[in-house]
Amino acid sequence: MNRRIFLALVHFPVLDRQGQVLASAVTNVDIHDLARSARTFGVQRVYIVTPVTLQQRMVEEVLDHWTKGDGAAHIRRAEALQRVAVAASLEAAAMAIAQRTGLAPVTAVTGAQMLAPTHSFAQMREELRRAEGPPVLLAFGTSWGLAPQIIESAQIRLPPVGRDAALQGDEPRYNHLSVRAAVAIVLDRLLGDTV
Amino acid sequence: MNRRIFLALVHFPVLDRQGQVLASAVTNVDIHDLARSARTFGVQRVYIVTPVTLQQRMVEEVLDHWTKGDGAAHIRRAEALQRVAVAASLEAAAMAIAQRTGLAPVTAVTGAQMLAPTHSFAQMREELRRAEGPPVLLAFGTSWGLAPQIIESAQIRLPPVGRDAALQGDEPRYNHLSVRAAVAIVLDRLLGDTV
Repeated sequence: MNRRIFLALVHFPVLDRQGQVLASAVTNVDIHDLARSARTFGVQRVYIVTPVTLQQRMVEEVLDHWTKGDGAAHIRRAEALQRVAVAASLEAAAMAIAQRTGLAPVTAVTGAQMLAPTHSFAQMREELRRAEGPPVLLAFGTSWGLAPQIIESAQIRLPPVGRDAALQGDEPRYNHLSVRAAVAIVLDRLLGDTV
Repeated sequence: MNRRIFLALVHFPVLDRQGQVLASAVTNVDIHDLARSARTFGVQRVYIVTPVTLQQRMVEEVLDHWTKGDGAAHIRRAEALQRVAVAASLEAAAMAIAQRTGLAPVTAVTGAQMLAPTHSFAQMREELRRAEGPPVLLAFGTSWGLAPQIIESAQIRLPPVGRDAALQGDEPRYNHLSVRAAVAIVLDRLLGDTV
């Protein structure tokens, strides 16, 4: 039994282009891509975090369609989307995980602007392979990234994802992966086969 | 100087759910996500491969908007989308690369159903760090994956991406990443920093 991993896709509080806190809109493609990546790498549950009631309802309608409605005939989509749920806040997601597992999770964050990481990916990968320890909630921000209060309150900070320095060339570093790409890469670095 | 890397997102010939060859539709989110992943990892150019004239025109309108039109003020998007181009076929993409670099590329493919890989990711990662050698065109299929004739004619076949076997648990393997996630993971495995 390895440590259990959960994902949160945060729509509030996140930053806009100017660094102001906002609530971003949930997108359908994020729900599907994160569900499929989570199923691939054995993530237990994906929480779509938004405090906006209408957005929560929209996500639930999408999930109902694919897990109970006409979409459920597409069994591979249903299988992935069954592990998605709505949460009103990152704290609510953590509470739901504590209820499921009996243990409060530690929160881990990454992002393009991450300063002072607490772990390398290699260290975190090794920690996740220990049988003992609380569940881990990997939180990702939409829009221009997680608000500082989320980053500061996280127990684990992972470095930003980037290109091998040996390949850098003369182009300046670019830190603008889509959240769908960033989630996929982080899950692969922590949980992927290394063939 | 490392070997130059190119991407192709193939919309024909690809397979549908039943294994029949079809031309899939280009989606806006694929163009943006692949452009951003390509810019992050130093891919020289992304070819959106479709033989359908109306689809080619749609892609060109999207690219014009973001590189010359109103979208160009978003400089980070413009910077990523400047490296995207349309190609009518995978062969046309290879010819464009030969014209740019003076060398015919080798084509590398991966996919959920890949049998008999020629390289591990580690081997390929090492090969790409050699100064000598032709450019590499990494081809990804939309829909249910690249048609067999593309896979058979590729010089390099990489294994499917998956979860560490030590973490497999009792869930059966799941090979249904989005192409956006698969591209991000493959670029990271071949070109990413390993912190």
